Amino acid sequence: MRRVKLALALTMGEPAGIGPDITLKTWKMRFERDVQPFYVLCDPELLKARAKHLGFKIPIKVVEPEAACDCFDEALPVVPLSGPVQVTPGAPSGTNAALVIESIETAVRHVKEGRASAVVTNPISKKILYDGGFHHPGHTEFLGDLAKTYWDKDVEPIMLLAGPELMAVPLTIHVPFVEVPKLVTKELIVDRCRAINKDMVERFGITSPRIAIAGLNPHAGEGGSMGTEEIETISPAIAQLRSEGIDARGPLPADTMFHSEALDTYDVAVAMYHDQALIPVKTLAFDEAVNVTLGLPYVRTSPDHGTAFSIAGTDKASPNSLMASLRLAAALAQPELV
Amino acid sequence: MRRVKLALALTMGEPAGIGPDITLKTWKMRFERDVQPFYVLCDPELLKARAKHLGFKIPIKVVEPEAACDCFDEALPVVPLSGPVQVTPGAPSGTNAALVIESIETAVRHVKEGRASAVVTNPISKKILYDGGFHHPGHTEFLGDLAKTYWDKDVEPIMLLAGPELMAVPLTIHVPFVEVPKLVTKELIVDRCRAINKDMVERFGITSPRIAIAGLNPHAGEGGSMGTEEIETISPAIAQLRSEGIDARGPLPADTMFHSEALDTYDVAVAMYHDQALIPVKTLAFDEAVNVTLGLPYVRTSPDHGTAFSIAGTDKASPNSLMASLRLAAALAQPELV
Repeated sequence: MRRVKLALALTMGEPAGIGPDITLKTWKMRFERDVQPFYVLCDPELLKARAKHLGFKIPIKVVEPEAACDCFDEALPVVPLSGPVQVTPGAPSGTNAALVIESIETAVRHVKEGRASAVVTNPISKKILYDGGFHHPGHTEFLGDLAKTYWDKDVEPIMLLAGPELMAVPLTIHVPFVEVPKLVTKELIVDRCRAINKDMVERFGITSPRIAIAGLNPHAGEGGSMGTEEIETISPAIAQLRSEGIDARGPLPADTMFHSEALDTYDVAVAMYHDQALIPVKTLAFDEAVNVTLGLPYVRTSPDHGTAFSIAGTDKASPNSLMASLRLAAALAQPELV
Repeated sequence: MRRVKLALALTMGEPAGIGPDITLKTWKMRFERDVQPFYVLCDPELLKARAKHLGFKIPIKVVEPEAACDCFDEALPVVPLSGPVQVTPGAPSGTNAALVIESIETAVRHVKEGRASAVVTNPISKKILYDGGFHHPGHTEFLGDLAKTYWDKDVEPIMLLAGPELMAVPLTIHVPFVEVPKLVTKELIVDRCRAINKDMVERFGITSPRIAIAGLNPHAGEGGSMGTEEIETISPAIAQLRSEGIDARGPLPADTMFHSEALDTYDVAVAMYHDQALIPVKTLAFDEAVNVTLGLPYVRTSPDHGTAFSIAGTDKASPNSLMASLRLAAALAQPELV
């Protein structure tokens, strides 16, 4: 396996969740699963305690980011935070919120400073961070703000879900079903698809990305007989994109977009709402899907699951999505590795 | 293979569509694909002409329904309609509407009279039937009315999509996205799930059917933070069903209901809208999905695709869904065959 030149920066995530568990399991399987070198931004004592709790013998080495690649085969590289993390698996506490945030902020800074190749984030609990004073709507928005802090760029982060067979972007995400039709505007579709097109070319190395855009209604409205958003909003957006030379196609009936033959006809799907994108991605690749943030000046991926408090500290959590996140982050940061 | 005692009644469907093509192809592959005996309610001259057009050598035998099983190995059994069908593949005409309808009505009557074991319908074109005076909202509603005509039963037909791995019922079907939240009522969920439960026991032979009910909103509303239909409508419906001894579960986040591990935990999924059911069914089993009508006093299945006028008469249409429809109809009519 060819390796990244600089290690990947992996955040601690919510320490009471499964983040520490899957981090340790991923490092344990570094040879059999060809894991790219990473370091964890975390209290080393937390990882030692969790390893002991799980019965894993894992040497942990406190390092500078630049040294992570060299020691990765022998020990799990850790870059400490500014203080200790006190935690019981499954029992989250707002007292760790500042360190959870510090871990994310430091990972992004390391990429900006040329000390890490990309950011991979372990799952956080928004509710716990809010209790600790976090004021961003979510992980992704915070990562967008850090682009402003370190690159002085105003960006609109875009969530892409990537499985081995399908990449899909939901245009609206954590909003009630009933609000979706109002939120899907021509401007939103055009703006997001321009950004998706740019990242598909620049990050994914696809020369002429084929962007398949779903309809909102059954059968994409069937000529207006089952809803008019396709005629009034989605088709005009596609026409605009095509006039700019972007290969946008649709609106397509969502139910026939995701079988294996259809998947061969485009590079990325754009869905109108959460479940329209996430049902096919998770049906095809449940524990291997990766959450990628497009539109940022740096590469960020994340496992596509939550903190899973109920199984934290039990050895039940699958590290597959974290492994896939590390693999994809490396490939996006250094396309010549793929 | 054990065979049905009485042949399956297969309707002509829209004669200008792919129905005749996939019917002929299915019969051609009767030995290699273990096709259960069926007869077609159709003008035999139409089938002879289409076979010639496609270059198939297919002996066609005009029979009474009771004789279809015995001759099925040697010839395609056909029960003629009351008149000839004049048709060009791909060019539908309202002049055939009465015979399309007669074919469906006769198939249902044959089951009532004990001359056929179940009804399998080829795809129709609603638009063409409307031009010919058809006044039912669709195929399924017409089949419900025929239950009234022949069994004197008022029924509410329910569409189930069945693939090899997943069976799913959409509670709302061909309606605009924006209308879905208003249409999904507690009463609708309770009534439909009672009927689904009954048919799962009586037709599918599942002793205690596990019915997994999807939420409407992302993450099933996540405790009301992304929509309230789960709290106000779906959960009370589930509580009602459980109080009646029906094993209804949910509301479940729709994006994590359809991966292979989740599919092992229930027998049938109930979705709130068209794409929520059809995306996973068609993603997992694109050309093998079968449309089954629940709630009827007889068994009816249908391929889960349309008339595909653009490829009618070209040998391009896949007979897989029709074959799966015949297989499932036989199994539902005579569960001891499975």
